Amino acid sequence: MKRMSKYWSKLAARLEPYVPGEQLKDKKYIKLNTNENPYPPSPKALEAIKAAADGSLKLYPDPLAADLRSTLAEHYGLKSSQVFVGNGSDEVLAFSFMAFFNAEEEVLFPDVTYSFYPVYANIFNISYRLVPLAEDFSLPVEGFFNAEGGVIIPNPNAPTARAISSKDIEMILVNNKDKVVIVDEAYVDFGAESVVELVDKHENLLVVQTLSKSRSLAGLRVGWAFGQEDLIDGLTRVKDSINSYTLDRLALIGAAEAIKDEDYFQETRERIMATRERITASLENLGFKVIPSKANFIFITHENTPAEDIFKRLREEGVLVRYFNKPGIDNYLRVSIGTDEEMDAMIEKLLIVL
Amino acid sequence: MKRMSKYWSKLAARLEPYVPGEQLKDKKYIKLNTNENPYPPSPKALEAIKAAADGSLKLYPDPLAADLRSTLAEHYGLKSSQVFVGNGSDEVLAFSFMAFFNAEEEVLFPDVTYSFYPVYANIFNISYRLVPLAEDFSLPVEGFFNAEGGVIIPNPNAPTARAISSKDIEMILVNNKDKVVIVDEAYVDFGAESVVELVDKHENLLVVQTLSKSRSLAGLRVGWAFGQEDLIDGLTRVKDSINSYTLDRLALIGAAEAIKDEDYFQETRERIMATRERITASLENLGFKVIPSKANFIFITHENTPAEDIFKRLREEGVLVRYFNKPGIDNYLRVSIGTDEEMDAMIEKLLIVL
Repeated sequence: MKRMSKYWSKLAARLEPYVPGEQLKDKKYIKLNTNENPYPPSPKALEAIKAAADGSLKLYPDPLAADLRSTLAEHYGLKSSQVFVGNGSDEVLAFSFMAFFNAEEEVLFPDVTYSFYPVYANIFNISYRLVPLAEDFSLPVEGFFNAEGGVIIPNPNAPTARAISSKDIEMILVNNKDKVVIVDEAYVDFGAESVVELVDKHENLLVVQTLSKSRSLAGLRVGWAFGQEDLIDGLTRVKDSINSYTLDRLALIGAAEAIKDEDYFQETRERIMATRERITASLENLGFKVIPSKANFIFITHENTPAEDIFKRLREEGVLVRYFNKPGIDNYLRVSIGTDEEMDAMIEKLLIVL
Repeated sequence: MKRMSKYWSKLAARLEPYVPGEQLKDKKYIKLNTNENPYPPSPKALEAIKAAADGSLKLYPDPLAADLRSTLAEHYGLKSSQVFVGNGSDEVLAFSFMAFFNAEEEVLFPDVTYSFYPVYANIFNISYRLVPLAEDFSLPVEGFFNAEGGVIIPNPNAPTARAISSKDIEMILVNNKDKVVIVDEAYVDFGAESVVELVDKHENLLVVQTLSKSRSLAGLRVGWAFGQEDLIDGLTRVKDSINSYTLDRLALIGAAEAIKDEDYFQETRERIMATRERITASLENLGFKVIPSKANFIFITHENTPAEDIFKRLREEGVLVRYFNKPGIDNYLRVSIGTDEEMDAMIEKLLIVL
């Protein structure tokens, strides 16, 4: 990354790549920095993957991912033709920027949000405008009306963890009838309202979800989009112009089994929500302000100690959280919800650090 | 794919996606149409995948793919910083078009070649010029000198199966000093000369390879590129602007183990080459012309019967081969090399069909 090269295209030269959360290996950390699920994936999914690790791996995967798409469609009450699957929701989002947004038409997203959105806009040369959040990080709904090019909002938002209502999203949809509105529901299963049921009603809605958070499968790289058929066709055209098979055979099978294991899903997500509520109370007792969270992470700031200091000191103590050195949020920390034991250990370390 | 949509971007509207080989499911076929390896993957790779299907799948994969890259580097006598890995060589090629080629500068590739190249050029809006092959499908080396934008050549070429020498590739490299020359070695392990050893000598060389063919792992989606550090950095910048983790944990581990299992690799590739030579002789006895092949497929034409007729009749008989309805090659068939039993069954069916 150090230097420019005469061999780079203009595109490569202008890129400002996304930087994922640290994956430190120098010692054993309590890892609360990349919003992974602390519980293992569905045992049924793991069994299915083991069984699929056989001679059939010599064959290409199904380029249409028909089985996984019909599993998702059935689970969410849609048709297979309303489902697109990809290599993590990041790839699905990247393809969406290519499929639905144009260079000269401004796409709107919040000024505090997933930091990959401006990276996509930059690589695909799409103009965008940041809509400022309110001081409490709530979303000004009218600010997303009548977009020139389209809208992308995560619900709940990251890294703030704040959710918006389906009703508010519907207002944004009806006020952007000719433009695609992407609702990034990566974290929706931890208490926010999904708009999946609005797919049949609004032809401009694309809902993006992932296996990485609520299904404990960040390591498998599977995400998907729900939308009406012509939106899904648009995404498929992009995929088939880049890579016919973005999901390997093991990911296709593991993903389908994880979706089918509803009991395990309900149990683990409820456990995380319960831990979140308990730990929120503990942190408030320690002098933290905790933004109301509907995600598997919380966004916190302390009344006395600067966030960056807490971040660095916690790392020394073996606890990784995420700190964004950006205006407006540079006194906040994003903390993933781990197991009860991990969160209690973090609280203990905070008692040392503060 | 049927219709246009008002929601599609200009890019989505102009796409002409690649069409992969048929994956028919209506009955059991002898599948000689997508150049898969007929032998299963290395048993050691399968064991490693099974062992990795555990609770750690809740965590993101290593975004740097450090272990796989160092395994590849060690195996091929390079440094890790000279290795990029991606989701199949298709994704690596797509990222290469973005990283090294510009809209207004013509990229050169053969007029008969892998049909994904013009698809990449189209999606990323890169101009290109097709260099005509000779009538025997050999590559006119001088035709690739002094490219405006860059060069991409597969060695051996697909679907013709013809190889060119390292010496010829070196001529192309020294006559394009300021432009990237991509050598797509998807099929190189079946008898052609690899130019991996030229990476240290030529700073404009990018060599692309894959697990899908000679390592029997089309179902795992792993490909890579070898080049000097600034080329690898260019690819990494593109990847990190689209998807931080393009390879899941299972693919990373399975790929590394497959590379390490050199004995199995040598045994299976030699078996395929032996079958190829034997079947070439049989086909010649049936009145076929067989283009000299250094790949795990052959490109054939019959003295009397039109290729399209043979293609359709073989499909009825349960044998899938690939037919390209394109000027210059529309009387040829591309036939993947299967097991000896599969190839003998094909010969039997040909006796019925011809």
